[in-house]
Amino acid sequence: MPKRAQEVARPVGICSMMKLPVQDSPQGLDAAFLGIPLDIGTSNRPGARFGPRHIRGESVMVRAYNGGTGASPFESLMVADIGDVNVNVFDLKDSCDRIRAYFKKVVSTGCVPLTMGGDHTITYPILQAMAEKYGPMGLVHVDAHADTADTMLGSKIGHGTPFRRAVEEGLLDCKRVAQIGLRGSTYDPEGYAWSREQGFRVVTAQECWLRSLVPLMEEVKQQMGDGPMYISFDIDGIDPAFAPGTGTPEIAGLYPSQALEIIRGCRGMKVVGCDLVEVAPQYDTTGNTALTAANLLFEMLCVLPNVKYA
Amino acid sequence: MPKRAQEVARPVGICSMMKLPVQDSPQGLDAAFLGIPLDIGTSNRPGARFGPRHIRGESVMVRAYNGGTGASPFESLMVADIGDVNVNVFDLKDSCDRIRAYFKKVVSTGCVPLTMGGDHTITYPILQAMAEKYGPMGLVHVDAHADTADTMLGSKIGHGTPFRRAVEEGLLDCKRVAQIGLRGSTYDPEGYAWSREQGFRVVTAQECWLRSLVPLMEEVKQQMGDGPMYISFDIDGIDPAFAPGTGTPEIAGLYPSQALEIIRGCRGMKVVGCDLVEVAPQYDTTGNTALTAANLLFEMLCVLPNVKYA
Amino acid sequence: MPKRAQEVARPVGICSMMKLPVQDSPQGLDAAFLGIPLDIGTSNRPGARFGPRHIRGESVMVRAYNGGTGASPFESLMVADIGDVNVNVFDLKDSCDRIRAYFKKVVSTGCVPLTMGGDHTITYPILQAMAEKYGPMGLVHVDAHADTADTMLGSKIGHGTPFRRAVEEGLLDCKRVAQIGLRGSTYDPEGYAWSREQGFRVVTAQECWLRSLVPLMEEVKQQMGDGPMYISFDIDGIDPAFAPGTGTPEIAGLYPSQALEIIRGCRGMKVVGCDLVEVAPQYDTTGNTALTAANLLFEMLCVLPNVKYA
Amino acid sequence: MPKRAQEVARPVGICSMMKLPVQDSPQGLDAAFLGIPLDIGTSNRPGARFGPRHIRGESVMVRAYNGGTGASPFESLMVADIGDVNVNVFDLKDSCDRIRAYFKKVVSTGCVPLTMGGDHTITYPILQAMAEKYGPMGLVHVDAHADTADTMLGSKIGHGTPFRRAVEEGLLDCKRVAQIGLRGSTYDPEGYAWSREQGFRVVTAQECWLRSLVPLMEEVKQQMGDGPMYISFDIDGIDPAFAPGTGTPEIAGLYPSQALEIIRGCRGMKVVGCDLVEVAPQYDTTGNTALTAANLLFEMLCVLPNVKYA
Amino acid sequence: MPKRAQEVARPVGICSMMKLPVQDSPQGLDAAFLGIPLDIGTSNRPGARFGPRHIRGESVMVRAYNGGTGASPFESLMVADIGDVNVNVFDLKDSCDRIRAYFKKVVSTGCVPLTMGGDHTITYPILQAMAEKYGPMGLVHVDAHADTADTMLGSKIGHGTPFRRAVEEGLLDCKRVAQIGLRGSTYDPEGYAWSREQGFRVVTAQECWLRSLVPLMEEVKQQMGDGPMYISFDIDGIDPAFAPGTGTPEIAGLYPSQALEIIRGCRGMKVVGCDLVEVAPQYDTTGNTALTAANLLFEMLCVLPNVKYA
Amino acid sequence: MPKRAQEVARPVGICSMMKLPVQDSPQGLDAAFLGIPLDIGTSNRPGARFGPRHIRGESVMVRAYNGGTGASPFESLMVADIGDVNVNVFDLKDSCDRIRAYFKKVVSTGCVPLTMGGDHTITYPILQAMAEKYGPMGLVHVDAHADTADTMLGSKIGHGTPFRRAVEEGLLDCKRVAQIGLRGSTYDPEGYAWSREQGFRVVTAQECWLRSLVPLMEEVKQQMGDGPMYISFDIDGIDPAFAPGTGTPEIAGLYPSQALEIIRGCRGMKVVGCDLVEVAPQYDTTGNTALTAANLLFEMLCVLPNVKYA
Repeated sequence: MPKRAQEVARPVGICSMMKLPVQDSPQGLDAAFLGIPLDIGTSNRPGARFGPRHIRGESVMVRAYNGGTGASPFESLMVADIGDVNVNVFDLKDSCDRIRAYFKKVVSTGCVPLTMGGDHTITYPILQAMAEKYGPMGLVHVDAHADTADTMLGSKIGHGTPFRRAVEEGLLDCKRVAQIGLRGSTYDPEGYAWSREQGFRVVTAQECWLRSLVPLMEEVKQQMGDGPMYISFDIDGIDPAFAPGTGTPEIAGLYPSQALEIIRGCRGMKVVGCDLVEVAPQYDTTGNTALTAANLLFEMLCVLPNVKYA
Repeated sequence: MPKRAQEVARPVGICSMMKLPVQDSPQGLDAAFLGIPLDIGTSNRPGARFGPRHIRGESVMVRAYNGGTGASPFESLMVADIGDVNVNVFDLKDSCDRIRAYFKKVVSTGCVPLTMGGDHTITYPILQAMAEKYGPMGLVHVDAHADTADTMLGSKIGHGTPFRRAVEEGLLDCKRVAQIGLRGSTYDPEGYAWSREQGFRVVTAQECWLRSLVPLMEEVKQQMGDGPMYISFDIDGIDPAFAPGTGTPEIAGLYPSQALEIIRGCRGMKVVGCDLVEVAPQYDTTGNTALTAANLLFEMLCVLPNVKYA
Repeated sequence: MPKRAQEVARPVGICSMMKLPVQDSPQGLDAAFLGIPLDIGTSNRPGARFGPRHIRGESVMVRAYNGGTGASPFESLMVADIGDVNVNVFDLKDSCDRIRAYFKKVVSTGCVPLTMGGDHTITYPILQAMAEKYGPMGLVHVDAHADTADTMLGSKIGHGTPFRRAVEEGLLDCKRVAQIGLRGSTYDPEGYAWSREQGFRVVTAQECWLRSLVPLMEEVKQQMGDGPMYISFDIDGIDPAFAPGTGTPEIAGLYPSQALEIIRGCRGMKVVGCDLVEVAPQYDTTGNTALTAANLLFEMLCVLPNVKYA
Repeated sequence: MPKRAQEVARPVGICSMMKLPVQDSPQGLDAAFLGIPLDIGTSNRPGARFGPRHIRGESVMVRAYNGGTGASPFESLMVADIGDVNVNVFDLKDSCDRIRAYFKKVVSTGCVPLTMGGDHTITYPILQAMAEKYGPMGLVHVDAHADTADTMLGSKIGHGTPFRRAVEEGLLDCKRVAQIGLRGSTYDPEGYAWSREQGFRVVTAQECWLRSLVPLMEEVKQQMGDGPMYISFDIDGIDPAFAPGTGTPEIAGLYPSQALEIIRGCRGMKVVGCDLVEVAPQYDTTGNTALTAANLLFEMLCVLPNVKYA
Repeated sequence: MPKRAQEVARPVGICSMMKLPVQDSPQGLDAAFLGIPLDIGTSNRPGARFGPRHIRGESVMVRAYNGGTGASPFESLMVADIGDVNVNVFDLKDSCDRIRAYFKKVVSTGCVPLTMGGDHTITYPILQAMAEKYGPMGLVHVDAHADTADTMLGSKIGHGTPFRRAVEEGLLDCKRVAQIGLRGSTYDPEGYAWSREQGFRVVTAQECWLRSLVPLMEEVKQQMGDGPMYISFDIDGIDPAFAPGTGTPEIAGLYPSQALEIIRGCRGMKVVGCDLVEVAPQYDTTGNTALTAANLLFEMLCVLPNVKYA
Repeated sequence: MPKRAQEVARPVGICSMMKLPVQDSPQGLDAAFLGIPLDIGTSNRPGARFGPRHIRGESVMVRAYNGGTGASPFESLMVADIGDVNVNVFDLKDSCDRIRAYFKKVVSTGCVPLTMGGDHTITYPILQAMAEKYGPMGLVHVDAHADTADTMLGSKIGHGTPFRRAVEEGLLDCKRVAQIGLRGSTYDPEGYAWSREQGFRVVTAQECWLRSLVPLMEEVKQQMGDGPMYISFDIDGIDPAFAPGTGTPEIAGLYPSQALEIIRGCRGMKVVGCDLVEVAPQYDTTGNTALTAANLLFEMLCVLPNVKYA
């Protein structure tokens, strides 16, 4: 149970996620927050390597109960902050190896990882580790970009390619993949053709403008069915006015209220892992991006299986 | 009447609110802007002590007429800037005493105070002074938080407790209290139970998402009736994308258009005092928070009794 | 065709608009991006002189195809960046002369100018040059302010007066003028009376709150008819949460999705010139304002006559 | 006498220079602080129009006595803040006329003006007004630049030309002019030839590196003699690490300790006016530039004739 | 031993001071870093409550050996980060009680506390706890201000009064007190009279300008003798160009090289405690202030008794 | 010859270095500015990929003549900006290959490259290309760090290892290597032993504090002799107060005046290439770092062989 700000002042204490206890391993945990401070897969503005540190810092505003849904995650699950993966900031492939190895250990215990990125490259080795245990997975992917490029500057690995690799390796159950929030200028006249060809559901930001996404999520819930699924939330899915601290921002995105509707709409799905990526603190001049990320990670925790609601 | 930017350049002049004349006392005024540069009641990020200075600075953009409603407040009322309360930045209780004493003098003249905070602690001694004159008051309270905690870190006074204290001391007419914009994680599974138990109307931000608040304010007007009422607007009621400069931000809040609908919806109520609190300039990297605050204070002036409309 | 970020890394290269080729003259071009780095017509916060440099910098995020509409402008038109007008930053009138002379040359070739401001003063000499070629023009003017003042501090020329001057000189076909996004406090009880008297259509921001503007643009399209028209987009038309980097911000403005609807709604009109003005980088702490500007300029390019759509 | 921060909290009150009383005219004053919020004479980064507002804001740190020299200016002289000159931010020449007219009135009363700029253009009309009363003046000019260009972009008036104009009009006693802190790349192989030809003493920053300037100021005192003299301090004379908030910064400049030595070294000269120019708050990310400016203006006050020392 | 950045990437891991192990108590430690996140004793700009968090964040740059002096503190002493004192951010007196009680426990174990402030108020209760164990102490106090006021706004406790209180209570051995770096405007013609009357050695910043402080520290070492002494370093002792992130900056201060000379000059003294106070992150726009603080705290560790040198 | 700001306003024009002509190849040039926008070799704060863009932006302040030394480089040499190397931001080794190949072409023409980094990794492939043409080279290396680590996180290539690799490959004439400005905490008790063992001259920052470096450079000139040599200037050699925009800052560094003395002291050496690395704009909140970099690159140009002096 995180410490109450009514008893321990907000500025007090070592910064773990929500001031949760820190432990080295996922042993004994139902869910664990952890960080992957890597950003060398970024094509434009770097900085997401400091995302985990920054999210932990702003997470002091998050309290133990979900006022919007009544969820009581800390009365339902054992949760801790297990620190960061020790990535190699000079070598993307080596970092992917380190991440995959680390997550194999995490998922082997049954612990659900709630990962703070880092750039979106990290979802590729995470999915490798998870699919090894759970088989092809469903995916709710919120993002401005499809991240399904084949190569970038000749490289197969980078923050624009994780879901291409995942499909190639059979990590995803393509009929159970939804990409929400896509938008912006594209490299081809029809930018999301590849996604649709795989069977993904593609929901552009344009389809979401000024609308509640509750009805959409009803449909996505049907789509996901009972199989294991993963939530990958790129903070740039949200409009950059609300989340400026990111590397490849696109205008006219989702609102935070819609982000909450999306995550809360995942309640009842078999969520086995989540990530929140691409928070780049240098551009987060007010802290709002990290604050949003901390809240969204808490909301993800709240929709994990077995969480009690008031 | 504030000086027109077409005659006096915007960067010119000593910064009073809207470049209004500065005078030491409320004598002869129908309404007065004033500041309370206090922030030692803040639980997280401090800085609101510089709120009044910063709001005055950005208020150079506000012109004399309300283009949206047709109000002509300066042709209707005598208004000036009467400076700041000389608070004690080392002692919260002493500051509350100073504020209460100061406001007793202000309200004794019949002048309506339009206060620039400072953190939300200040509303407690203000309400003490106002209730002494007007009896239990109605309240339109816009905020992300209910501010009804019993204690914080063992202290009875702070920016999370003013309305608890106000109820305990009978300063509020509880049936005529509306709290709008509440949201975020909470310390208890049902965060707003206490408010509802007192008879407050609680309107969460979630109920407001992507909606016009004009219908809501019709209902609130009925609720307020003819009795004296106060408007207390915590800038964190607004979404932090629009008003990042504040100490305890919560995501997914009200939009400025909704803030305007709320204040404009108070037209016709018996408004006897107003405040706009929690503007912390250090986090207001663009000036938007103070600009919003200055505009909202102007809008509050426009809904005071006896203001003429075109 | 701009270089693909999948082949040339985003941080690489001299910053022209979208990394387009730079050439000195509009010769041979169907459309040209160009800058006017002038801000001495600003009444409040200066800085727009660095608007063109800043927009070019953030334009590295814009790709060659319009994912939202299917437009392929670079397969349809010859486009380049022709640099900046060498304005005189010490003398507003001399600068207007330089701008007018420059644009006469640009429009004489039939090239459509897509101008990066600079403050809104620049639209006056641009319209002089364009009307000389095309006759009185239609205008879609997005802005928080009508910019129809007679004088400012005694000066006839400034960023608050361009459309007054344009009407006086017969540069506009007043029945084909639409002003969208107007809002804020005003110098007179009815702030937009003069515009309406000229026959302009005035659409306040208030009329746009939380609404799709697709229906509005259908009407505007009727209004514009077949005659030549100009798009002048003041970035302060957009809410300052999304576009903080500007000199005279007003709260409660348009959303970027609405801005896209407005520009995309101009498809099919006879657009002969466009500008995007008032981007002041010093207040654009996250780059979002310039990013928005770069995208809107790209969207303007996409609605030029003869652009092919997928 | 400014209010003591031990009695009135620093954040409290309307921001005048050092919280001095504000009055409209120089009547009855020995010295007056005033602002000229003009920056349209700037060749690079604008923003100095907000210099006076920003300096006043940071001046809350300045106390009534000079701990370094023992000066007690407020026990010696009547001093107030007389507000700002209402410049025309659209027209440099008109602004110069307004400034000259205003300063004629100020100096006619015998009051010593201590001016907060604004860009360096303003010193030209100030010197016109002062020389009319006092005849050709001595000058201690601290700056990175000589400001003696003939024209800039064809304009005779701008922040790079004031001392050329002043010499042409006979406003300066050229043998009693010292320029200190000059440095940087130049438009000609010998950048300061013109100054030397007029008889100015030129002291480059390079001659000052890591040295006390006390000996230099002994010599300058000899040079100034008994005649009336003026101190014009461009904040860019100081190294931009210490004073980043300025429009045309040059590296490797003076240190604040040297700035203090220069001004304190003017004690005993017949100082009849002073200015501190080119503070551009947008680039003063920490407030240090304005803090330095406020302190230097206070130090100038301390070396006025008739100030008592402990 | 802190983790090497050559083995664990700098962005990786929970932020403790220098990534040292975190433990709850000082048990078994020779020295401990700890934080006091309190800033309600501040007279001007608040924010120092986030000093400890910010210093820990930037401390990732500090490696285990002192390249300048050859000290190997982690091969000599057991050191950890013991977290923060849980202060009451609403009540200064209660916070002082909590601090004093906490430090009694720390010093009772013989552990040397290296404290990250927090505003300078905290040194008062720390000295109470230390003097109780060690008797009247010597003090090397680096600061822009003497902090010897009797009251501030009527309050006896605040960041301007700790050394007055300490003298009154006999906590200091006044002949063994040195105050270094004092400067700025003052409330009295002779600002440091009281300090000198107590027998303190006062070294103004002016005496330090452009000088090595090695000779000074030889003298201070004589002054301190063999008795127990404390180092209290207010970051505003350093020039604000180097350490802008602080609440009451004064221009023309010490250089970081001089700060290193001062602390390194304490080698051989009987140092029983140290603090580094007044780091306010909101004004530390580049991280330099916290980086300086982290390095100075490391340097303090290096001069503790029993540290081995290469 | 760069355009004069007296004829083309500073904000005008596409940003090349000093607004020099842009050309694709070094053909016909005596010297060329070029950028390497790479930062994936950074161990701490990334961002240097935007260094070249940012330096070009601030270079508008640099004029054609060297006021401090009388150099007239543009009357002596043909100089242009040849754009950026198209690095692979996802793969450090591939980037090194691209850089080496590119520089082989540049040096083959006899053109002297003046490179804007990018992190310090880039100097390794540059030296490979240069040594292939010139043989083992002399080196003046200004830096806070020796950059002679063997590996970082297991990687042989990174910004901490270039000079280790260069020595191993025989690219340097070790007796003609000087490292100036080294400082900070270290991974070993004697941090610079390896450098000294190779025969490098090591000059720590501590040896430079408050001293002119003119005498030092006389000695370095002797050391360099007549052979070809390279200048590699890491901006973190300079104190972070003056150059905050960098990734691994260390306190108490060189002053800009000393940086000028170092580079000017290279006049007369056989300089065949230069770089200025590690400018990270995200931390350069005021532009000072890029301004310093632009000036230092200009100074490097001024000491190239065959430059005429007034």
